[in-house]
Amino acid sequence: MARIVMKFGGTSVADLDRIRNVAARVKHQVEQGDQVAVVVSAMAGATNQLVAWCQALSPLHDAREYDAVVATGEQVTTGLLAIALQAIGVEARSWAGWQIPLRTDDAHGAARISTIEAAELARRMEGGQVAVVAGFQGLAPDNRISTLGRGGSDTSAVALAAALHADRCDIYTDVDGVYTTDPRIVPRARKLDRIAYEEMLELASVGAKVLQTRSVELAMKERVRVRVLSSFANADDAANGTLLVDEDEIVEKEIVTGIAYSRDEAKVTLRHVPDRPGVATAVFGPLSDAHVNVDMIVQNISAEGTTDMTFTIGRTDLPRVIDCLNRERGKIGFTELLTDKEVAKISVVGVGMRSHAGIANTMFRTLAEKSINIQVISTSEIKVSVLVGLEYTELAVRALHTAYGLDAA
Amino acid sequence: MARIVMKFGGTSVADLDRIRNVAARVKHQVEQGDQVAVVVSAMAGATNQLVAWCQALSPLHDAREYDAVVATGEQVTTGLLAIALQAIGVEARSWAGWQIPLRTDDAHGAARISTIEAAELARRMEGGQVAVVAGFQGLAPDNRISTLGRGGSDTSAVALAAALHADRCDIYTDVDGVYTTDPRIVPRARKLDRIAYEEMLELASVGAKVLQTRSVELAMKERVRVRVLSSFANADDAANGTLLVDEDEIVEKEIVTGIAYSRDEAKVTLRHVPDRPGVATAVFGPLSDAHVNVDMIVQNISAEGTTDMTFTIGRTDLPRVIDCLNRERGKIGFTELLTDKEVAKISVVGVGMRSHAGIANTMFRTLAEKSINIQVISTSEIKVSVLVGLEYTELAVRALHTAYGLDAA
Repeated sequence: MARIVMKFGGTSVADLDRIRNVAARVKHQVEQGDQVAVVVSAMAGATNQLVAWCQALSPLHDAREYDAVVATGEQVTTGLLAIALQAIGVEARSWAGWQIPLRTDDAHGAARISTIEAAELARRMEGGQVAVVAGFQGLAPDNRISTLGRGGSDTSAVALAAALHADRCDIYTDVDGVYTTDPRIVPRARKLDRIAYEEMLELASVGAKVLQTRSVELAMKERVRVRVLSSFANADDAANGTLLVDEDEIVEKEIVTGIAYSRDEAKVTLRHVPDRPGVATAVFGPLSDAHVNVDMIVQNISAEGTTDMTFTIGRTDLPRVIDCLNRERGKIGFTELLTDKEVAKISVVGVGMRSHAGIANTMFRTLAEKSINIQVISTSEIKVSVLVGLEYTELAVRALHTAYGLDAA
Repeated sequence: MARIVMKFGGTSVADLDRIRNVAARVKHQVEQGDQVAVVVSAMAGATNQLVAWCQALSPLHDAREYDAVVATGEQVTTGLLAIALQAIGVEARSWAGWQIPLRTDDAHGAARISTIEAAELARRMEGGQVAVVAGFQGLAPDNRISTLGRGGSDTSAVALAAALHADRCDIYTDVDGVYTTDPRIVPRARKLDRIAYEEMLELASVGAKVLQTRSVELAMKERVRVRVLSSFANADDAANGTLLVDEDEIVEKEIVTGIAYSRDEAKVTLRHVPDRPGVATAVFGPLSDAHVNVDMIVQNISAEGTTDMTFTIGRTDLPRVIDCLNRERGKIGFTELLTDKEVAKISVVGVGMRSHAGIANTMFRTLAEKSINIQVISTSEIKVSVLVGLEYTELAVRALHTAYGLDAA
């Protein structure tokens, strides 16, 4: 007997047949003797329709009204799944965010969960009732509905699992787990049975978008065992999917767990910036104020009192960044602003790096052997990232996957 | 300055353009200096889709889950209308039933309103904010969403008007008021400027389905001034639409206010029922248990210890009634069961009848002049109804409309 939170996304509940499939899967879990809560998203397409209506009526709509409209998508799914469960003999009831209540802050449209009063849910689950919970939504302090932002249902599921002290949170997706790298690029990529939260965070934030980053952070903080698995996999088989666990639970640590890449980058270089104290703030302060997320930063050594600064940003932010820097040009004092959208970030990730030297050098040597020029380097405790030309993405990922011994036998 | 509740049905909010039209109409009302609450239905078609999903998953679905699903339709409209109002500079916010709260009993799917805690709404309306309220829904004692049954938004609007002590409740529909009879049958039918609640009830329950019967009963009980008017009418013109008022407010009472008809009737006759005490209970008790609504009842005088009993029911109930009576045949003891679906009920309605004799006789004489045979007669204080052959419906309505002097000049 275990207490399990199951989460199904929009494509898993896209129509009545798929909702019936989800119900059958939940029933199977209940028949194992488990206590089950199910977190669901809106039926695929429903949220987009509701968002489009709000946008069409007013591009600058009230976020509280947006939340009231958009949260209905999940409410519909919970009721329908509860009916589908009852129809096959499973005791179930639906829960809107405000009914639990799952409380959030007042950042309507992108709220953060504050508390979940899960005692009543737990009591009913102990009595054999399946709790069907609306993902993505909660109750703000003003007694109005809040939503967590797109993809927030993963976070709802993890937070609910933490509040319920669940044994596991199973996230059903359209992939069957987390891979050593993107199988579309490297056919010999291997599915990982286990991955440390920290590794998952690095892989998620650099492009392996299996789980919403916030949900992984929350799982790590609350030590929730999250399993990512396919809606079509056999849930009984513990080897299915990928389990997110604490680093300590991974006995045989791979030095490198995976190779990630991101093609959504842009590189910005400021030439001949005066090399004086405070110049970094002069550059990055205004960008921060403009809510631009700056990733890799490199500053060359000074020559003749000036230096070149290079950093990377999300590609969609580039026009805003150019605009912002040109406005600050007088204060910063650079001579030239260079930008490049034809770049990709390649990262090698692994908690084993902490205790192994030479990981970065293997990366540099491997890329050099393929004549791939490295434009920017940045490192963290469990990750080494490099910026390369966009056209080298696949070549770099494949070469590194082989070099670190990750290829499937 | 007045306090007004405006109610718009599903066709008035069927798409974004119509929602913008409703917003413009509400803005116009606000600009008169009025305090305004708006009650809205789901966008036309939305409720049917949601109901169909519930039905498809399980014909015998949990009414509480049905309510959770179906109530989302109105929630979407409230948010969208609030956004549309804000976009044209009108301060507004949406209210789901549970947020007000509008409390109901626990009869999920067909709940009755118990209380509306309207103080906060009133406070905000006094401050100039338009309250956009979801019709058709409330909060049941189990803290779950309830719905009032189809068409319940009229009732929501009237109940809210009562709770807010509103000066008037304007119900916008696709007709421009209540007529002396159906204009499709009698082109010279006249729109009534005023009608007494009691008359409206009789007209509504016999076929003039402008307002939901429950909403009229509630308006009468709470003395809410309800105006029925077209979504396209000029709301400023007090002469537009039809105002439901207390009988005392109608100074010049018409003897007959209107002619109603219903073609949804069926006639049932039991031949040779033993004429003994308790036989009526033996017939109508089982029908009541089967939730059959019996309308007109006639019992002939006894002949040789037996009598014939005739009554009318809704036509769709006929198979159930035949089944029920045949099962009870031994206990009741009739010799023959006759049924007729080719019947129509014609009614003349008017509060002036109370003080005028001869109303019924005018009806009988008029029908006799047209050689229309009367099958059953029933009377109440303000109504005389007869059952006639279905094919005489139009002829009877036209003749009576003329006979009572209702034709437009």
